[in-house]
Amino acid sequence: MNNKSRNVSSSVIKRLPRYHRFLGDLRSKGLDRISSKELSNLMGLTASQIRQDLNCFGEFGQQGYGYNIELLQQEIGKILGLTKLKKAILIGAGHMGKALAMHFDMTTKGFNLIGIFDKKPSLSGQTVQNLPIHSMDRLDEFCRENKPDMAILCIPRGEAHNVAEALVNLGVRGFWNFTHYDLSVEFPDICVENVHLSDSLMTLCYNISQ
Amino acid sequence: MNNKSRNVSSSVIKRLPRYHRFLGDLRSKGLDRISSKELSNLMGLTASQIRQDLNCFGEFGQQGYGYNIELLQQEIGKILGLTKLKKAILIGAGHMGKALAMHFDMTTKGFNLIGIFDKKPSLSGQTVQNLPIHSMDRLDEFCRENKPDMAILCIPRGEAHNVAEALVNLGVRGFWNFTHYDLSVEFPDICVENVHLSDSLMTLCYNISQ
Repeated sequence: MNNKSRNVSSSVIKRLPRYHRFLGDLRSKGLDRISSKELSNLMGLTASQIRQDLNCFGEFGQQGYGYNIELLQQEIGKILGLTKLKKAILIGAGHMGKALAMHFDMTTKGFNLIGIFDKKPSLSGQTVQNLPIHSMDRLDEFCRENKPDMAILCIPRGEAHNVAEALVNLGVRGFWNFTHYDLSVEFPDICVENVHLSDSLMTLCYNISQ
Repeated sequence: MNNKSRNVSSSVIKRLPRYHRFLGDLRSKGLDRISSKELSNLMGLTASQIRQDLNCFGEFGQQGYGYNIELLQQEIGKILGLTKLKKAILIGAGHMGKALAMHFDMTTKGFNLIGIFDKKPSLSGQTVQNLPIHSMDRLDEFCRENKPDMAILCIPRGEAHNVAEALVNLGVRGFWNFTHYDLSVEFPDICVENVHLSDSLMTLCYNISQ
């Protein structure tokens, strides 16, 4: 990683996953390079914005050549930390939890799912993607042994506080939070990414209503 | 609705669903009123920010009384357009689509799910939440008859372009987009709310890696 990249602003960081995704699409189409103008048309940004953003990571673009797609995607992946897989556990194996475990490839986004937990006794022993669903009783022991970095929360909001507190005490440093519970208010030092589906749908409702 | 509310800035609008959610929680706990200070502690905002935001909608707060929780939530609901249900269809009845249809109450977020479509012949005729899953062949006729306002896209990205184009031509004005395809670049006049799970997980990966 170029030293330059160590001072990348948070607004640039927020755009990195989208760059990573678009560059991956271009690679899968067999393309080697792209100009900032072409990339800007694809992504709905200005070419100048793209040049500014990507210059943060070093000298990938060359006048008259454009960007080397593979190199640039790899570099963005390194900055995002995708190359070193972190350990994730899933709490809650209802429809949403199962949908994520079965159909969402986490390894290309930096995480390896190593355990699934649900409080429903009827689910214990079932497997999802070759992982057994454990009862919540086993959470403590499992975390001490396996030291997961992150937990995916797909549980009712009433349970979120206690589960999150236990996990933080067990060393979990981040949450992918599908529960409508604002963890970041309570645990300001923990990394939280919320997928607040209700808020998203209400925002869409507002925009359609205008 | 107070006239004042018609000029609410987009940054305030973005915070409305979260206010609505917190006020709903307070109501479900049986509370009638709350001060901006108490609400700010709950939500991790400053009291002054909350007063500024909520003043956009009229005179809900009173010195020494605080906010009337029910009235304020109702007013925010009206501004978000939640009180007039819009018609939604779901495209793609895989795990994610089914999880949404079965476990996510859309009616409290402004939408009524009226149809489900999937291209897999084996799913045709199955029902989810009392709605039959239709084959994609029926989409055109269904939309002409029922005029849905919004479509939930839970389909592979390779199919997103054609499906979205067809739906826009059939009068659909908004998308709740779970597909990793940037609709808003292609349809700038259509309302799109993206749930880009990959981007969200990569952002979490970056933050945990720091």
